[in-house]
Amino acid sequence: MSDGAVDARYSEAQGDKKGTQPLLVLRPKTTAEVSAVLSICNAHGQRLVTQGGRTGLSSSARVCEGEAVLSLERMTALDPVDSDAGTIVVDAGVALQTLQETADAAGLMFGVDIGARGSATVGGNVATNAGGIRVLRYGMYRAQILGLEAVLADGTVLSSLKGLAKDNSGYDLNQLFIGSEGTLGVVTRACLKLHPKPLYESNAFCALPSVEAAITLLSRLRSAMGPMLSAFEIIFPAVYESALRFSGKQRPVQATGDVYVLAEIQGTKAEVDNERFAEALIQACEDEIVSDVTVSQSPREFRAIWELREACSHYITSCSNMVGCDISVALREMPGFLSSADIAVRTADENASFNVFGHLGDGNLHYIVGTEKPDAVTDAILSCVKAANGSISAEHGIGLDKKQWLHLCRSDAEIAAMRRLKAAFDPNGILNPGRIFDMPAQQPPEKDARS
Amino acid sequence: MSDGAVDARYSEAQGDKKGTQPLLVLRPKTTAEVSAVLSICNAHGQRLVTQGGRTGLSSSARVCEGEAVLSLERMTALDPVDSDAGTIVVDAGVALQTLQETADAAGLMFGVDIGARGSATVGGNVATNAGGIRVLRYGMYRAQILGLEAVLADGTVLSSLKGLAKDNSGYDLNQLFIGSEGTLGVVTRACLKLHPKPLYESNAFCALPSVEAAITLLSRLRSAMGPMLSAFEIIFPAVYESALRFSGKQRPVQATGDVYVLAEIQGTKAEVDNERFAEALIQACEDEIVSDVTVSQSPREFRAIWELREACSHYITSCSNMVGCDISVALREMPGFLSSADIAVRTADENASFNVFGHLGDGNLHYIVGTEKPDAVTDAILSCVKAANGSISAEHGIGLDKKQWLHLCRSDAEIAAMRRLKAAFDPNGILNPGRIFDMPAQQPPEKDARS
Ligand SMILES: Cc1cc2nc3c(=O)[nH]c(=O)nc-3n(C[C@H](O)[C@H](O)[C@H](O)COP(=O)(O)OP(=O)(O)OC[C@H]3O[C@@H](n4cnc5c(N)ncnc54)[C@H](O)[C@@H]3O)c2cc1C
Ligand SMILES: Cc1cc2nc3c(=O)[nH]c(=O)nc-3n(C[C@H](O)[C@H](O)[C@H](O)COP(=O)(O)OP(=O)(O)OC[C@H]3O[C@@H](n4cnc5c(N)ncnc54)[C@H](O)[C@@H]3O)c2cc1C
Repeated sequence: MSDGAVDARYSEAQGDKKGTQPLLVLRPKTTAEVSAVLSICNAHGQRLVTQGGRTGLSSSARVCEGEAVLSLERMTALDPVDSDAGTIVVDAGVALQTLQETADAAGLMFGVDIGARGSATVGGNVATNAGGIRVLRYGMYRAQILGLEAVLADGTVLSSLKGLAKDNSGYDLNQLFIGSEGTLGVVTRACLKLHPKPLYESNAFCALPSVEAAITLLSRLRSAMGPMLSAFEIIFPAVYESALRFSGKQRPVQATGDVYVLAEIQGTKAEVDNERFAEALIQACEDEIVSDVTVSQSPREFRAIWELREACSHYITSCSNMVGCDISVALREMPGFLSSADIAVRTADENASFNVFGHLGDGNLHYIVGTEKPDAVTDAILSCVKAANGSISAEHGIGLDKKQWLHLCRSDAEIAAMRRLKAAFDPNGILNPGRIFDMPAQQPPEKDARS
Repeated sequence: MSDGAVDARYSEAQGDKKGTQPLLVLRPKTTAEVSAVLSICNAHGQRLVTQGGRTGLSSSARVCEGEAVLSLERMTALDPVDSDAGTIVVDAGVALQTLQETADAAGLMFGVDIGARGSATVGGNVATNAGGIRVLRYGMYRAQILGLEAVLADGTVLSSLKGLAKDNSGYDLNQLFIGSEGTLGVVTRACLKLHPKPLYESNAFCALPSVEAAITLLSRLRSAMGPMLSAFEIIFPAVYESALRFSGKQRPVQATGDVYVLAEIQGTKAEVDNERFAEALIQACEDEIVSDVTVSQSPREFRAIWELREACSHYITSCSNMVGCDISVALREMPGFLSSADIAVRTADENASFNVFGHLGDGNLHYIVGTEKPDAVTDAILSCVKAANGSISAEHGIGLDKKQWLHLCRSDAEIAAMRRLKAAFDPNGILNPGRIFDMPAQQPPEKDARS
């Protein structure tokens, strides 16, 4: 289960960061093997970094000096879909897209979708609590998880794959592993919730005069469409124009706006739902909340609108010298945050170029800036997030990249509590050490006497 | 903030259990007072039991010998609703019904409803991860929580009340306090999600030939109605007849069934949604899945149907000598579980009388038995739950009442992990000690060096 020759892929990191060579690569095939590997590493204080698809955007899976890689790439089994329960049990190494396709083939759908679906794995998604475009309707990854199987640093296997919709028999230990970026255990399997496929879906692309107008539109569509509203994305003009140029796609609306919004509904009956959707949008035009709108009239138009949103991400990926922040603030803080961040970034780097888009429905923006001064610009953006009482990482985690800024949105008491958890579950600090936060250096590795 | 004369209400427990007199009653008004109380108690090893509305059904808030009561009853402030964000921040001592009414007055709704709404508090709901009748649509309490403020045993205040829909900046510490029955910290405030009010709602009452038919109906309504399906309750004949007699209400359907189902939808447009609902139900009648059905045609009929479901709970409350289990199993296990439990209970007590109803949509049954042999009957029911790979507590927690059976559905490794958490956050064991599980007796109280 271990590899002599280390393939370069394990040390390649997202973006332009130089990779470090791991000491060795462990590729277990079963949970028992994961458990054996961890208990040996734990006994010897051998540090590990767990890797799924290595698509994470906070360098949490990047190899640090002296670490071995624990890759889940050989754990790719899927149980058959349980259609009555609407659940599936899969190995942590399964790619998100494989999961989506398996659900689809069984007439159901999985609620989370992200651009990295082809390589990102279920284990990585769990460990980062991935979000994406339909959080508004289906919630983040946490909301998809009925149970996990995970291995603690000392090799203890915790299994909770019963697929129960409700279980309040003692602590819900699954929650420990969701969003903790592999620092508290290795996820080996997951029991996930599947949803009925929407019987009907539609989307609209709007130009709007301001962010305030976009927030008003969100609130109107929420009331008008209830749980049908499944996505509400925002794109700012600079990245909109770049994405159009980059992708060669047509403008979905003729008017130019101060912001653009993509709204999606998932309904049950084409005529009725689309009529209601169109009515709400037309009313918004009449009330000058929206300056121009296109509602998709066919699956082809539906896809074309989404492709423009995806072109924003592709355009960014094609650029170099971009610093990316993935922030969230409460909607009432959003306009204020945007103007203060604009000023702060320009002050940090007068040549900065702005690429802002994201999931406005969740108060979540990908705030991406082209700059030669990455640290100063990141400081500027994240200080404005702090002032707006927001989060410096809405979806992508902290990893190594954002660790120095964690204190901007989490108190000393909170970070101390995180350390208590880390010390309780990984006393020797072998799992993804130094990700999210550092442990106090004076603390000597100790054998765990409790378990 | 402390009371000399101890009012009897603090030692009264649900049901017929004798209460114990607390050493004293602490009734802090602010989070700072909670923090002060806890750090003093922690320093002196004074054990506490936290109390909200004392409506919990697992005796978790019941006073044990030598404990002081920490009551949240004076912490009852509500911030104004943030309508744009759809959130509200409330004190832990606020009654669920007050929260519901405040949301309603702001044109929104809160997603959880339970029978004990008048006295049960937000803090108690969080600590038990309360569920109720609309989990199918809105999830359990965990899904309503955007953030918490909580105080650890040593007085540390953890606050995360920003109201962000997405935050993955380090561990989500809120999860620790949800469903852990007050054993890891005292919840003082909560930021909760509110939902748009349904524009239209309707329900139906059905008689069906079997549990299998009810499961088929559930799956059909899920596909037909998508996220509109908001409740799917089951009532077995014995408790149905008793509830009718007890409440003097009319039979909603003339046919008798092997089981009865109450299904509810929350939609957006009366004609369309109800037509679709009625179509699916008529088709189920034609296919002999349903033997008789009434669909509500007015708010009055809608309420009458719900009142019959509530009459089941009221009837049970009026009885004595009832043992109640609140179990869940996967739907595919449900028919097998029901037949084996039936045999096992009759074997344990040939005079047992069965009162079974609950949230079939979540695989969750209140399995309540009139018996003179409570322990033997509980053993019988919960052993069948174990055999069906289910949970011995779907909604009500473990507390003191179900502690001896916890091992039937949680492994030694899981219980050891729960103990690690308890030791990390409450090393002196002052918060609700002995609830859910016992700590090893040999472990001497130690001062926490880490925080
Ligand atoms: C093009 C693109 C689009 C994206 N879009 C989104 C988006 O819309 N929303 C969003 O939330 N994220 C998005 N992401 C980032 C997202 O976090 C990751 O893509 C994904 O969740 C990580 O999965 P992975 O298998 O690649 O994990 P990796 O990158 O391999 O690892 C990520 C973290 O998880 C840990 N980990 C991996 N597997 C396990 C396991 N089995 N057990 C324990 N820990 C484990 C790692 O140690 C590391 O800390 C995007 C990324 C890309 C490249
Ligand atoms: C008629 C009736 C119907 C019910 N229906 C349902 C139902 O449908 N679904 C369901 O899930 N439950 C139901 N319940 C049980 C439910 O668990 C409780 O009613 C409720 O959640 C407990 O709230 P409480 O304020 O009364 O808590 P209490 O009973 O006072 O306490 C319950 C637990 O929470 C802890 N606790 C209380 N406040 C705090 C705090 N601020 N911080 C930390 N810990 C705290 C206590 O220590 C104890 O462990 C029902 C109960 C009754 C009596």
